[in-house]
Amino acid sequence: MTKIGEAGPLQTVAGVRVGAAASGIGYPGRPDLLLAAFDEGTTVAGVLTSSTTAAAPLRWTRERLAHGDAPRGLVVNAGNANCFTGAAGMRAVEETASHAARLLGCRPAQVYIASTGKIGVPIDMAKMRAGLDAAHETLARNDWDAAARAIMTTDRFPKAIAATAEVGGAKVTLQGISKGNMMIAPSMATTLSFLFTDARLSAAAMQPALAEAAAGTYNMISVDTTQSTNDTILLFATGTGGAGTDLRDFRAKVGHVLGHLSQRILEDARRDGVLVRIHVSGAESPAAARHIACQVRDSIMVRKMAGQGDKLVLGRIIASVGMSTEKVDQDRLRLAIGGRTVSRDGGFTDGFEVPKAEYMSADKLDIDVDVGVGTAEATAYTVAGAHL
Amino acid sequence: MTKIGEAGPLQTVAGVRVGAAASGIGYPGRPDLLLAAFDEGTTVAGVLTSSTTAAAPLRWTRERLAHGDAPRGLVVNAGNANCFTGAAGMRAVEETASHAARLLGCRPAQVYIASTGKIGVPIDMAKMRAGLDAAHETLARNDWDAAARAIMTTDRFPKAIAATAEVGGAKVTLQGISKGNMMIAPSMATTLSFLFTDARLSAAAMQPALAEAAAGTYNMISVDTTQSTNDTILLFATGTGGAGTDLRDFRAKVGHVLGHLSQRILEDARRDGVLVRIHVSGAESPAAARHIACQVRDSIMVRKMAGQGDKLVLGRIIASVGMSTEKVDQDRLRLAIGGRTVSRDGGFTDGFEVPKAEYMSADKLDIDVDVGVGTAEATAYTVAGAHL
Repeated sequence: MTKIGEAGPLQTVAGVRVGAAASGIGYPGRPDLLLAAFDEGTTVAGVLTSSTTAAAPLRWTRERLAHGDAPRGLVVNAGNANCFTGAAGMRAVEETASHAARLLGCRPAQVYIASTGKIGVPIDMAKMRAGLDAAHETLARNDWDAAARAIMTTDRFPKAIAATAEVGGAKVTLQGISKGNMMIAPSMATTLSFLFTDARLSAAAMQPALAEAAAGTYNMISVDTTQSTNDTILLFATGTGGAGTDLRDFRAKVGHVLGHLSQRILEDARRDGVLVRIHVSGAESPAAARHIACQVRDSIMVRKMAGQGDKLVLGRIIASVGMSTEKVDQDRLRLAIGGRTVSRDGGFTDGFEVPKAEYMSADKLDIDVDVGVGTAEATAYTVAGAHL
Repeated sequence: MTKIGEAGPLQTVAGVRVGAAASGIGYPGRPDLLLAAFDEGTTVAGVLTSSTTAAAPLRWTRERLAHGDAPRGLVVNAGNANCFTGAAGMRAVEETASHAARLLGCRPAQVYIASTGKIGVPIDMAKMRAGLDAAHETLARNDWDAAARAIMTTDRFPKAIAATAEVGGAKVTLQGISKGNMMIAPSMATTLSFLFTDARLSAAAMQPALAEAAAGTYNMISVDTTQSTNDTILLFATGTGGAGTDLRDFRAKVGHVLGHLSQRILEDARRDGVLVRIHVSGAESPAAARHIACQVRDSIMVRKMAGQGDKLVLGRIIASVGMSTEKVDQDRLRLAIGGRTVSRDGGFTDGFEVPKAEYMSADKLDIDVDVGVGTAEATAYTVAGAHL
């Protein structure tokens, strides 16, 4: 199993301290609560679930982002989503923010909150308060490995990466932790990702970078096509390091970090199954390319044949491309499996089904579709296997 | 197993004759080709797949409908979808139309064509021609049971229903045959449905009735969320019976016939699994109600828990409601399982999961969600089980 440090050991990020505690809210006997403390001057950008049954912490954090509340703290609890918990759920969020604010010496509105886990279970606030106290006492240790582990639910391993970016001629640190193997667990799991940098960047400057990176990474992966009530990506910039207006490298690195973390989520979900990569080219627009790729990605029929049996029924890919209703030229459509072209002049060259053994490895299926109407491209990923 | 005649024995429809043959195109040794002949004056309305990788026969029939070509014949072959077959596929369609037109004494453009089965396999035209000749010879027998069976692919049983409607004070016959258990077979299956009436109705009068009925029935069921390249519903009116402008009863009966046929498809797909009914009320608009119901219907997580295990994790339903992004009032949302309300004030009353044995029968899960923001309703269906 790949260890957390595969991208190089985690670093510290100037202006951030992290602590963790076994609160007992979600998982008895192991850390399930993360507290992060930010220096004054920290800014934040966020990409949140579009669910209309979003959890209480999600709604709280959405409001914080909308109001531009300067972050001084982040609380993440694993094992309980605090979703569909009624008025008590919002009270729990407010009390969590108040308690953390007292510990950190800030206003409650400066505490960002994310939760993941079961839906419809009230948060035990006594455990939350005690857990926050305990996590606060570990801030001095600044243990990032513990932080990455404290946000896990059904994850088989933690996900984290440290990178370096150039902003205004200076090197800055960009570090990310994430959790998720999507909603394949008995109860609900969720994708949470937190990025931390010491760059000095405004929320307005970071927001498009984060949104663009999420669109190209997290939004292109799916395990079970289920968007959660709690999905959260937050990027915190403490402002102790480099500043500047040329964000090209920073944007690229945010994409790199989210790309790595999203691939680690897929790897966690894959188990002994198959990683399916769908690359679409020749589309009318980037949005059309993404739409087609995601339609193939989300096809139950495509995933079933990828994960089971010994043949690939190629028509399932053709049908899922068409389901997008995006413009396609059937007679120019080019389909390749495992890098081998299997279509010509709007038909299959090697038969309507092909043996897997010849077209894919045991754990990877590569689908390339050129739809023959333009120049736009996109890549999507999913996993398939008997366990899904 | 329910037999074809459950809705009463099939009738004949004045102005239509049907024949069937074992062409060998799709299934050796059993009828897999249907030929229907219509008297002059017959009109037609249709609802077709929106797939942009639609099959050759689909594109042919779409053109016939667009041009308003008066139907004199219908050819349906099972086992080969004639999809992704390039230029040869369109030639096969044209030759099929020409051959049937010669047999029926009409123009090729008056022959409507539908196919279902494997994608990417060329049609054997020698078999098609011989099959059409053989089917033509059976027109005099007008065997509707054979017709219903000839369009089956992986169906476990044929689907058919005979009904009576009142048009302009006169009784007319409305008869429907259908095939499909959705795309759960090793290769591709498809939904095809053909309705026949002796009423005298213009295509323009029938089209909204058919579209509305399809929206409320076929478009609300799903087995694997996969729209096919060949999905076709056609309604033929021979004009030998009643005529009139009051179509209220006729519209209702078209809805009844499509409702019955779509439920039979679900029953075929269910096998020993579970029928899941999702009723949404309190939505902002009919479109929002349908969207929410279909989002719950298509949730892999909801279907997995319906078909496996002994508990229902209620948060999965809440999350799938929210995925629609339609307006929802979480605190007024009311969820009932098997008729028993399990929510109050935005939370669960019986815990975050409930034992199946107490809330559903072995083969039926009823989910009722009132989203608390309006008055619109919709009902969707799917099936769940280990075989899916």
